[in-house]
Amino acid sequence: MALVNEHFLKLPGSYLFSDIAKKINTFRITHPKQDVIRLGIGDVTQPLPQASIEAMHKAVDEMTQKETFRGYGPEQGYDFLIEAIIKNDYAPRGIQLGHTEVFVSDGAKSDTGNIGDILRHDNSIGVTDPIYPVYIDSNVMCGRAGILEEDGHWSNVTYLPCTSENDFIPQIPDKRIDIIYLCYPNNPTGTTLTKAQLKKWVDYALANDTLILFDAAYEAYIQDPEVPHSIYEIKGARKCAIEFRSFSKTAGFTGIRCGYTVVPKEVTAATLTGERVPLNKLWNRRQCTKFNGTSYITQRAAEAIYSPEGKEQIRQTIAYYMTNARIMKEGLEQAGFTVYGGVNAPYLWVKTPGGMSSWEFFDQLLYEAHVVGTPGVGFGPSGEGYLRLTAFGEREDCIEAMKRVKRFTI
Amino acid sequence: MALVNEHFLKLPGSYLFSDIAKKINTFRITHPKQDVIRLGIGDVTQPLPQASIEAMHKAVDEMTQKETFRGYGPEQGYDFLIEAIIKNDYAPRGIQLGHTEVFVSDGAKSDTGNIGDILRHDNSIGVTDPIYPVYIDSNVMCGRAGILEEDGHWSNVTYLPCTSENDFIPQIPDKRIDIIYLCYPNNPTGTTLTKAQLKKWVDYALANDTLILFDAAYEAYIQDPEVPHSIYEIKGARKCAIEFRSFSKTAGFTGIRCGYTVVPKEVTAATLTGERVPLNKLWNRRQCTKFNGTSYITQRAAEAIYSPEGKEQIRQTIAYYMTNARIMKEGLEQAGFTVYGGVNAPYLWVKTPGGMSSWEFFDQLLYEAHVVGTPGVGFGPSGEGYLRLTAFGEREDCIEAMKRVKRFTI
Repeated sequence: MALVNEHFLKLPGSYLFSDIAKKINTFRITHPKQDVIRLGIGDVTQPLPQASIEAMHKAVDEMTQKETFRGYGPEQGYDFLIEAIIKNDYAPRGIQLGHTEVFVSDGAKSDTGNIGDILRHDNSIGVTDPIYPVYIDSNVMCGRAGILEEDGHWSNVTYLPCTSENDFIPQIPDKRIDIIYLCYPNNPTGTTLTKAQLKKWVDYALANDTLILFDAAYEAYIQDPEVPHSIYEIKGARKCAIEFRSFSKTAGFTGIRCGYTVVPKEVTAATLTGERVPLNKLWNRRQCTKFNGTSYITQRAAEAIYSPEGKEQIRQTIAYYMTNARIMKEGLEQAGFTVYGGVNAPYLWVKTPGGMSSWEFFDQLLYEAHVVGTPGVGFGPSGEGYLRLTAFGEREDCIEAMKRVKRFTI
Repeated sequence: MALVNEHFLKLPGSYLFSDIAKKINTFRITHPKQDVIRLGIGDVTQPLPQASIEAMHKAVDEMTQKETFRGYGPEQGYDFLIEAIIKNDYAPRGIQLGHTEVFVSDGAKSDTGNIGDILRHDNSIGVTDPIYPVYIDSNVMCGRAGILEEDGHWSNVTYLPCTSENDFIPQIPDKRIDIIYLCYPNNPTGTTLTKAQLKKWVDYALANDTLILFDAAYEAYIQDPEVPHSIYEIKGARKCAIEFRSFSKTAGFTGIRCGYTVVPKEVTAATLTGERVPLNKLWNRRQCTKFNGTSYITQRAAEAIYSPEGKEQIRQTIAYYMTNARIMKEGLEQAGFTVYGGVNAPYLWVKTPGGMSSWEFFDQLLYEAHVVGTPGVGFGPSGEGYLRLTAFGEREDCIEAMKRVKRFTI
């Protein structure tokens, strides 16, 4: 008798984004003429950089001739892309990476979800709270998160609250945790850590033999030179951290799928008998067995963002989104809201007014300002009392949304 | 202290294909002027269908304008592709599938590797032997395969030998097995099952509450009308089988990555207390959590193979490979070899002459005929005494390889 993985059944039945979709549908049925501005979902809206477009046309044409046709590529990604990544994303920051330390993939969601394959099911995990739900859900699926307790916490997960009370700086735990997820710039709060703050985490990890899973998907949005783009800017991180990167928000690749994961040769984890095992070798084996590389055409598009033209094009698009963020932040503050993030990240984290719950504020914003955000509580217990807005919309929508928000608060 | 998944450490250190690469390198160093014909690896060599090329250029251009730009797509794939799959691959065979039963992915390797996520780690598994190594390796990684015994078998895996002794027809087990992997047309043997033979497996699965994981990646190569293309041609299969399909060999998509998996609504597995859980819902949850859809551009390329032009173009390419297969089969038989497969599949399964081992024959073929195959034993214990050749090469290479084989056997 085939048996299911019962850990899946522990996951709550409904999704944050499907609950939101239902509420929007209900609104639309009752208000058929009212247009709604959606600033909730974290998808980009601007076209791909022209350099990537040209690279993809060229790559498509290569597929028409057997002399230039590309079949299976390396599971780890093509050398041309790995070289461009090392040369442009790491070397200028003084980080030396070997070719076999970078694994190109179809995106950071896959990699942050699948990384658990190489780790024991009973490691304890720690997450900053609120967080990107994939970290928790993928751990629930393999039993690592434990069971869902009545207060909404998972029994084997240590939650590190990040709220306005601690300036969104997670406190270093007073106990050993096997695996810690950090995402900086943070989704959903849009906040960052300085080098000094991140160093405390690396020191904690080295002292406690903790593995840090560092999600840097939004690093391209960092404006402040004090904010590290990579955890490997911190000494010792090569021994304790795996870093995830994505082209989704850097270059608008949400629809064409590319990201990469760095697993330095020095990062190890232990067997029960204490033997140290390099995780690079295990991740390589995982990818070679259960993944077959990402599209050649997409990899050429990714390579192209590192050309001088590509760099300038993504700089402009990021500036566009960050101008959105500034307009929204200023608009919200003028309307009397307290807003976090939006300076080194494309996310704004808005404190709900008057002690409202996340969902109450969501409803009020939808019904009175016709603007859609994402309830903060959907990202974890410490997200209660906040709402996330993203800067990935159209400029005119952001401006119009701020007008509505101001009218609604008067 | 972060602990590794120790099941990974049970995997043998060396890979079949890296062992082959080493041997070829050694030969090249000692025979620098001798060209080698590689008929070992299962990658395609012919360009993509023109219909897919045109669709990709169009899709790339859509990415240049914000009005037509596509960001995140559905994790399950775009409706346009799912509709084309249902209408063309299933409806003409009398198989009705719902839209939510088809999950588009980045390939059958990912899906056959990841499907285990939704199943308990202690299900017993059965595989035809020899088989595609991903089935075994992905089960080793989660502990489901048990431990590697001295005779090369995994302790929790039931091997169903397929050799010339039983005409490559696996015997129905005399015990209950929770999960059975079937791949037809078969990789590596190139053999098939008739509807009557496959029906025995569906009947077994229904009687024993077994889940069949049916890999139909090579169905496009079937010539014989008696050979089923889908397991759902067999009554009752909707209750017990998940089917994997790939565009890799059908349309040359090995480099651009697309496949799909069918999980009918009726397929269930049990909890320990006997409750039935639909696997469709679990696979959907798995994909939504750990996958973010396959490239929009690739999905448009896949849709295009179902156009009248696309169908004709892939028909021609498949005919080209199957002509290769015929030339190789005839050449080998004229040279005195016994050859299986190659009629409804792009693989030829060659009996080693004179009781040679797979590796001995591999070496002899490399050093005396300068032709590379894949040792059958690399696909499992019952592959010993065979060698796999693929029909995916260039025509002139296949013809030249047969000339060399004939000379070498004289």
